[in-house]
Amino acid sequence: MKTMFRYNWLVREEWYRWCEEVPEEELLRIRTGGVGGILHTLFHIIDVEWSWIRSLQGKSDFQENVENYSSLEKIRKLDAEFRTEVENFVNSWDISMENRPFYDPQPDGRVDVDAWGEVMRHVIAHQIHHIGQLSVWAREIGKKPVSANVIGKGLIQPLSSEQ
Amino acid sequence: MKTMFRYNWLVREEWYRWCEEVPEEELLRIRTGGVGGILHTLFHIIDVEWSWIRSLQGKSDFQENVENYSSLEKIRKLDAEFRTEVENFVNSWDISMENRPFYDPQPDGRVDVDAWGEVMRHVIAHQIHHIGQLSVWAREIGKKPVSANVIGKGLIQPLSSEQ
Repeated sequence: MKTMFRYNWLVREEWYRWCEEVPEEELLRIRTGGVGGILHTLFHIIDVEWSWIRSLQGKSDFQENVENYSSLEKIRKLDAEFRTEVENFVNSWDISMENRPFYDPQPDGRVDVDAWGEVMRHVIAHQIHHIGQLSVWAREIGKKPVSANVIGKGLIQPLSSEQ
Repeated sequence: MKTMFRYNWLVREEWYRWCEEVPEEELLRIRTGGVGGILHTLFHIIDVEWSWIRSLQGKSDFQENVENYSSLEKIRKLDAEFRTEVENFVNSWDISMENRPFYDPQPDGRVDVDAWGEVMRHVIAHQIHHIGQLSVWAREIGKKPVSANVIGKGLIQPLSSEQ
């Protein structure tokens, strides 16, 4: 669990650096698929991650509008603001939380019940899915996307070897 | 670990059903980003998943060419052929395997060492990333992509509740 959050944060940081080399108009351009643009996608990833972590803790959700986050700098600042709380929650994760029920009232009156472990995996997969979309748009503007590799980042230490 | 493989297999099946409604020329069309097309992506996901699982077991890798898998039917058949072995390995997974070293010789003579747990997460993220690319291409051809939601699939049973 913690490994994949760390993976996502590393990849996100690499995308921020990638964005530094791209004209802002390309980062803001409306594109086909996903939530419709590069910075908008990064905002959406941050927003969704934080919102779910807040919801699991029974805290109020984020109501900010993407229009207020129309630069890389603002996106990074928002991410940094949210990160501490998300990181604390992720680091406090233990196996006993896996099956805790999360009650999610729906617009039609039903109440969905999701296991906390499912919600956490949803957050992880959510970023990876949207980063896949960024990788297509990167090629559309003629730039190599950030690698999505999990291996090679030193996320899990292998048992000692002669290598 | 097992949860996310099951998630990936469910999503993959949904994409096969999605493909049934799309003309084959669209499935084969070369596109920007990723490995360059819809069926090619599905082949690549299956190939990479199976190859890593084979490699961890010290078994030989798959050498087939994507050109031999140029229809949805052939892709599904390949997936079914590989699934038993992959599923057996995933179901036999236990925590003691997380840090086992996997030695991966590189073309330049170095030998990378990856923890098995890292390789497994790499395989999981690999599919999700490529499915994100499919979701953009789906919109390019005017079709709604398959949902990437982890929640709502009954993957983890929440503890009993009054709901």
